[in-house]
Amino acid sequence: MERIKLVVQYNGKDFSGWQLQPEKRTVQGVLEEKLKFLVGEEIRLYASGRTDAGVSAMAQVAHFDTEKKVNPNSLKNSLNGLLPSDVAVLLAEKVDESFDARFSVKKKTYQYRFYVSRHTLPLFVENATRINDYADVSLMNDACKYFIGKHDFSSFVASKSGKTDFVRTIFDAKIITLENGLYAFEITGDGFLYNMVRIIFGTLVQVGYKKIKPEQVKDIIETKCRQKAGKTMPANALILKCVEYV
Amino acid sequence: MERIKLVVQYNGKDFSGWQLQPEKRTVQGVLEEKLKFLVGEEIRLYASGRTDAGVSAMAQVAHFDTEKKVNPNSLKNSLNGLLPSDVAVLLAEKVDESFDARFSVKKKTYQYRFYVSRHTLPLFVENATRINDYADVSLMNDACKYFIGKHDFSSFVASKSGKTDFVRTIFDAKIITLENGLYAFEITGDGFLYNMVRIIFGTLVQVGYKKIKPEQVKDIIETKCRQKAGKTMPANALILKCVEYV
Repeated sequence: MERIKLVVQYNGKDFSGWQLQPEKRTVQGVLEEKLKFLVGEEIRLYASGRTDAGVSAMAQVAHFDTEKKVNPNSLKNSLNGLLPSDVAVLLAEKVDESFDARFSVKKKTYQYRFYVSRHTLPLFVENATRINDYADVSLMNDACKYFIGKHDFSSFVASKSGKTDFVRTIFDAKIITLENGLYAFEITGDGFLYNMVRIIFGTLVQVGYKKIKPEQVKDIIETKCRQKAGKTMPANALILKCVEYV
Repeated sequence: MERIKLVVQYNGKDFSGWQLQPEKRTVQGVLEEKLKFLVGEEIRLYASGRTDAGVSAMAQVAHFDTEKKVNPNSLKNSLNGLLPSDVAVLLAEKVDESFDARFSVKKKTYQYRFYVSRHTLPLFVENATRINDYADVSLMNDACKYFIGKHDFSSFVASKSGKTDFVRTIFDAKIITLENGLYAFEITGDGFLYNMVRIIFGTLVQVGYKKIKPEQVKDIIETKCRQKAGKTMPANALILKCVEYV
């Protein structure tokens, strides 16, 4: 048996997320279909984690096992020849069986893109969220530091169903300028709960609008109460930037 | 009479360029229609210059004259309420009659976006051009300096019809990194000929592919022969970044 690791980029706009769902167009579904055709057997892909409908990935990581002999680089090129233009394989390589795309993850980085404007901006509208021009971005950046560290993120999860452990470690969180007028909130952690990044960013927006002081983020974390945090921001501005294994 | 200056952003994808054309959807056409409705008289817009079909603008500048009394800021907000999501007014202000959006231009900056990859990349495909992964971007950057200065750009113009003066001054030309894997060729000059930026970039691509040495750009300029330069690159990756008047 051989284990192959894939690094995959996709534009989430026309996908119902990563995970396979009947009757829906998903990234996993599209990739597994082409892999089956090329490898010649049913392939099951395991990703670092699912991404929701509309969320994009600069470099998602997944693995699969196969009994067939495959040349990873040829497979990559053949896949890219067959895949639609909104998904591409950046890398394919053989890995040891101890590598697991989901369970070996050490760090994940998400990027949430936004711009500050009274009006919708044509060049940013597709992949970034607009926040009003009275928002103070430097206050939002100040608030980022309160998310860093090991915390119970119960206040920042959409639904607790099925989960019992809400403790995650955030290694870094900051706001960066991508280009004139376009910003990104970047957050790196050992893992993220359902909708966590979008709810954290919704809370930062409240800080930007001066409805919450930066230091109040500490209290919101401590209350473990979803209602204290901001709203879940739209999916189209969220990108899984990278997944690290060492 | 009052003269109003507008700064306009648009995504060129679904426009047949800036300039009014019968039966075509153009930026000028869409703006003049909404201005007529709001100001209450026929409005003629004069831009810093036309942009071709598919070309976007971060900040195009235009002016119009009106006999009516208008409050520029209210006009801006009303326009943005009426305009489709692919065009927006960033600024509207009263200017002196000596200001002319076209003839007062001192500098224009264009950005041509590209990525270097063997395959189409889903997150860059819409607004950037792919060039093959054997391209040497540092050679392309080396070649940029030969465009700087006052030159006859006859080798870099699509069609000479109607024009007799092909001399333009380029103040700056360079390749910058926008984000991981995404680059932009940025060029600032006192004006640009028809398709000039797209042909210059096509020539830089030949340098990247080692079909032309960087220093040969000098010769290509001197020959004044369109056939010596590279091909015209696609419009969707070109953005008019800014127009300067001082």
